[in-house]
Amino acid sequence: MTISHCDTLIHAAWVVTQDDSRRILEDAGIAVSNGFISAIGSWEELAPVWYPKRIVDLTKHLVLPGLINAHTHASMTLMRGLADDLPLMEWLTKHIFPVEQKLTPELVHLGALLACCEMTKTGTTAFCDMYLMEEHVGRAAEEAGLRARIGEVLFSFPSPAYASQDEAFDLVRSMKERFDGSNRVNTAVMPHSVYTTSPELLEKSMELAEELDIPLNIHLAETQTESQQSIEQHGLRPVPYAAERGLLSKRTLAAHAVDLTDEEIDLLAKSGTRVCHNPESNMKLASGIARVPEMQAAGIPLSLGTDGACSNNNLDMFSEMSSCALLQKVHHKDSTRVPAQQVLDMATRGGACSLDMPQTGYLAKGQAADLIALNLNTPSLMPMYNPISHLVYAAQGADVALTMVGGETLYQDGKFTRIDYPALREEIRDAAEFIKKQFEQGKMA
Amino acid sequence: MTISHCDTLIHAAWVVTQDDSRRILEDAGIAVSNGFISAIGSWEELAPVWYPKRIVDLTKHLVLPGLINAHTHASMTLMRGLADDLPLMEWLTKHIFPVEQKLTPELVHLGALLACCEMTKTGTTAFCDMYLMEEHVGRAAEEAGLRARIGEVLFSFPSPAYASQDEAFDLVRSMKERFDGSNRVNTAVMPHSVYTTSPELLEKSMELAEELDIPLNIHLAETQTESQQSIEQHGLRPVPYAAERGLLSKRTLAAHAVDLTDEEIDLLAKSGTRVCHNPESNMKLASGIARVPEMQAAGIPLSLGTDGACSNNNLDMFSEMSSCALLQKVHHKDSTRVPAQQVLDMATRGGACSLDMPQTGYLAKGQAADLIALNLNTPSLMPMYNPISHLVYAAQGADVALTMVGGETLYQDGKFTRIDYPALREEIRDAAEFIKKQFEQGKMA
Ligand SMILES: [Zn+2]
Ligand SMILES: [Zn+2]
Repeated sequence: MTISHCDTLIHAAWVVTQDDSRRILEDAGIAVSNGFISAIGSWEELAPVWYPKRIVDLTKHLVLPGLINAHTHASMTLMRGLADDLPLMEWLTKHIFPVEQKLTPELVHLGALLACCEMTKTGTTAFCDMYLMEEHVGRAAEEAGLRARIGEVLFSFPSPAYASQDEAFDLVRSMKERFDGSNRVNTAVMPHSVYTTSPELLEKSMELAEELDIPLNIHLAETQTESQQSIEQHGLRPVPYAAERGLLSKRTLAAHAVDLTDEEIDLLAKSGTRVCHNPESNMKLASGIARVPEMQAAGIPLSLGTDGACSNNNLDMFSEMSSCALLQKVHHKDSTRVPAQQVLDMATRGGACSLDMPQTGYLAKGQAADLIALNLNTPSLMPMYNPISHLVYAAQGADVALTMVGGETLYQDGKFTRIDYPALREEIRDAAEFIKKQFEQGKMA
Repeated sequence: MTISHCDTLIHAAWVVTQDDSRRILEDAGIAVSNGFISAIGSWEELAPVWYPKRIVDLTKHLVLPGLINAHTHASMTLMRGLADDLPLMEWLTKHIFPVEQKLTPELVHLGALLACCEMTKTGTTAFCDMYLMEEHVGRAAEEAGLRARIGEVLFSFPSPAYASQDEAFDLVRSMKERFDGSNRVNTAVMPHSVYTTSPELLEKSMELAEELDIPLNIHLAETQTESQQSIEQHGLRPVPYAAERGLLSKRTLAAHAVDLTDEEIDLLAKSGTRVCHNPESNMKLASGIARVPEMQAAGIPLSLGTDGACSNNNLDMFSEMSSCALLQKVHHKDSTRVPAQQVLDMATRGGACSLDMPQTGYLAKGQAADLIALNLNTPSLMPMYNPISHLVYAAQGADVALTMVGGETLYQDGKFTRIDYPALREEIRDAAEFIKKQFEQGKMA
């Protein structure tokens, strides 16, 4: 018997690997070295062979790959619940945009840190984020230890982060440089949508993405209103218009993709475009019901996201998984639609694909040790007959007892290892006072 | 200044009273004596006047009335996740019914205790339950300290609890007697549905309810399939058929009420029938989308329920509130539909109406001290601009830090005061082994 050394040896009651054969292991071990999985298998086999620096006892827990939130706007936690139950356009133009004009790098950073705390605590280990002054979201992710795909939101009008299109693209370039060495954060070109950008901005966005060899993310086909506006402005619905601008490719991640024709699903599929589905945001903003089974059948790589905390109003991917499955079932009047395994795939493997992070999304030898553990002793997870059903239909973010990224424990049993959460809370309270003032002034204006 | 004595004085950062004017109090006090609220108001006013035996410090918390789960089958927690993603009839007849045939009073009691733990921990203080050998659910509720409306499920065929219709009715009578002295549990006559009962059983059920002067609960108009079967068997859709049998009245609580025509909504409204809406169960089983705004507009008293843990798969009323609002918004393509306050009303005041527990559902002088407290320090509840929005869109059951019924703390910061939860867990594990065996045998049969 050869003895091997590792940093950490995890002993788990259950491991949902999400590997190619979707193996579920009972009484299992995971050996972790330098942030990666050196071995995974039965405890009986691993325990005598692996000599760890530390053992993590998860024998009352279910371990799975960290969930991946493939579309959010982390800093919007600062505006959580500021305005609800409103028509989408009133909400966006009268309430959200005016407050966003007042944001500072400090506030963007602070809101993102809060989001990182919430995501870490609820089992998300990687997220994809689009916002203004996004560099400061990347900084927050690095501090919090989460993986992130980040991108400055690009409009064809000035934002608090840039005065012109050239400045905006310069920002993308400098962010790419800034995070090139990061092993947690990567960047993308992120034009906001087809209704907030000129044809030229869209084309230049893809040119830049190709030049820098980074992905392109965009909100696409979120509502019927967007479709109508696109026809009026560009003579085409959003997906064909995006195709004409050269935006659909394997490099592309489209968020929402709700209002789609059969032909548009084909267009997305053939181009290799990936789609992030955001059911709770689509429900809360009444955007519509995405054609998940049809996109799935067409072979579009699907992931799952919460969208921002203003349109959700939390960043809990467990809740998002449940909503995803339940909404499709009732919509299609078929309880067999979008079964639990498919939803879990979207939130793990699908997310890894959307974020171009192939080392995440499933647990196997050589993969990153990005994993979470659920406490199986909580009443709502008892008894357990089917771990996959539990993860999608019964579990909540609060059931997460441990969150690990790259072999590093970021959260365990209510405590963050990197972030001084009590201090952060005080800063959030002050920031909320400021936001509230801007909001009230906006209403009076 | 007159000094008054009370058992408990609560100091809360926020109180969402849900009283007639929906007052929200900041920095508030609640004085509790003999299980009832003696005073509620600003801390500044109450603190000098009230001399308590104990002070409960909830100055980092939001206090609200305990949530009321107006339709569930508590003992089905034992079968949580046993079978999912299946067609409704296959699920019910091939998986659930065969296992239920093997249930014993001990198992019914055990499952109900687990459900009580889950509900207590997630902020539910009262529930309405229909099941077989229901006396043992009532026993569990009394032990756990929760309020409950209970009823033996009545079929026109034998159940493990009775061999004949007469035996079934005798059981209802004896349960009524058994719980007549209880200050937490009351009983109702509960025919299962129009598709599992004879016309005679339905009529006799209402006669018995009138004789005993107790309510009547029934599953009604849950699916289009039920409507079609009802037309085939009785020549009428479920609601008119129930009306013809004399079942619609102020005494009645109908669960689900999904497949309704305009005329049927009128029938329900004019008869005073109350309705419990179960959005997550309706979604998971693909039963359909209930006409919540239409029922609301017609003046039908509405409450909210989780249904059993097999079709949900948790008993978290916070998740249910969110699903209720979000589903209606996307269904009606209108983000202003079913706003947060309306949903919270269903889960509190509406529940109190459905369960005939007028002393619960809102916090005011003279009301029962049935209340819960949410920890506002958790990342997903920060910052807070609008408490009502938070309760419906951001909060989860796990955010509950304290649950009190009749002035008695049943749960605080992870600990149950009445139930030996670690011992219960062991019993649940054994029971799950037994259930699994029955399930496997059922599949082979
Ligand atoms: Zn978005
Ligand atoms: Zn039911």
